[in-house]
Amino acid sequence: MLSKKIVKYIQSLSLKKFRDAEGAFIAEGPKIVNEFLSEKKFKCILICAMKDWLNENQLILQSDDVPSVYEIDEHWLKNISQLKTPNKVLGVFRKKDISSVNIAGKISIMLDDLQDPGNLGTIIRIADWFAVENIICSDNSVDCYNPKVVQSSMGSLARVNIIYSDPEAWLHAHRNIPTYAATLNGTSIFDLPTIPEGIFLIGNESKGIHGDLLKLCTHHITIPRLGKAESLNAGVATGIMLSQILKYR
Amino acid sequence: MLSKKIVKYIQSLSLKKFRDAEGAFIAEGPKIVNEFLSEKKFKCILICAMKDWLNENQLILQSDDVPSVYEIDEHWLKNISQLKTPNKVLGVFRKKDISSVNIAGKISIMLDDLQDPGNLGTIIRIADWFAVENIICSDNSVDCYNPKVVQSSMGSLARVNIIYSDPEAWLHAHRNIPTYAATLNGTSIFDLPTIPEGIFLIGNESKGIHGDLLKLCTHHITIPRLGKAESLNAGVATGIMLSQILKYR
Repeated sequence: MLSKKIVKYIQSLSLKKFRDAEGAFIAEGPKIVNEFLSEKKFKCILICAMKDWLNENQLILQSDDVPSVYEIDEHWLKNISQLKTPNKVLGVFRKKDISSVNIAGKISIMLDDLQDPGNLGTIIRIADWFAVENIICSDNSVDCYNPKVVQSSMGSLARVNIIYSDPEAWLHAHRNIPTYAATLNGTSIFDLPTIPEGIFLIGNESKGIHGDLLKLCTHHITIPRLGKAESLNAGVATGIMLSQILKYR
Repeated sequence: MLSKKIVKYIQSLSLKKFRDAEGAFIAEGPKIVNEFLSEKKFKCILICAMKDWLNENQLILQSDDVPSVYEIDEHWLKNISQLKTPNKVLGVFRKKDISSVNIAGKISIMLDDLQDPGNLGTIIRIADWFAVENIICSDNSVDCYNPKVVQSSMGSLARVNIIYSDPEAWLHAHRNIPTYAATLNGTSIFDLPTIPEGIFLIGNESKGIHGDLLKLCTHHITIPRLGKAESLNAGVATGIMLSQILKYR
């Protein structure tokens, strides 16, 4: 049985200020919760689940990694869920603030003030597909623990590192690594050689990359346009660029 | 001044059954409404706009293409808008039911029961970017005149043809054209030659392509996975495949 206090605690995690204060976030649905539990990168705080999910996942629940488990019915799941169609299980996990990662010799993604939670989730999923370990987000980007980001990443947040930082300071600190800015008038991505190491910079959905940041980039690259659309969705552009860069791996 | 009857008519167009009954749909915001007005592929039924949009678009409004124009304030715009943040102008346009197009010698997209409006909008935008003229949707796919599709296509629906049809019958009728099914275990898209003509088939977000349809496809293709994500978003997969197929054009 869930206490009123726990219900309120879980509900509060839909808002960033409470996620920051509590150092916790929500993940929902069998696919996504199970990825977080099996990857073990984030400490599990509690699990609320319906009987059938609990029956199917007894082994996981017997480990020391899951301290509190609550069996709930559909009514209570609706009460605590952020989804339109709640799906059997909700987990609360401990946030991880990652401040430094080693990006030398790797391909990384940098996002400059990306705002849409669905776009960030999609980009995390793309990174996971192409084995990109690290995404550096400007401090003004959408929170990666926003429930919509967690859900649209389809569990990939359980594997990819997300680092919030000042992008200019980051590029200064890594100025030996080539930087590729996605723009509308750079070198065609189809004319690029194989790239073993680099930071790929994607801008805000409507404003693109900040001018000061653009100046720090060593390369400007573009997906050639054959038709008339003004731009591509940020997630789609990231996918197309990464596929081209990484295709010979 | 908007009559109650017109307000009710516009509001009703958020639902498919009323869009079908009225043969009309909504587009919102300066960027998207202006694309529909300038492309002239869809007949304009009415425009509701705030003063500043009307002032900036007097030339368009003087043409015979825009029969009814209503100046409205923010309060009324909120009343008729489908957006969280209404944006200056809302247009109602006449739907076009396209039953046949010529796809010989061209690259086309076919969608098998795609459900998410944002995914369809994104794919229409990708088609427009890569000059793909035609998208064939199975009859059970999401309606392309759904307001969320119209908005997420960012105006590209004003240019790309969307045809609803039975996909098996369509492939039978076009069996001289090669068909490329996006699957998880086909030929790598990086090993494909340049493709001058073909139908690219993308499946439902969770179930993929129906087995019967898959059997009719002449090629199975795949975006090679380097990491651990189980799948890619349908829009992202479409973008990556098309970019690779069309890169030498």
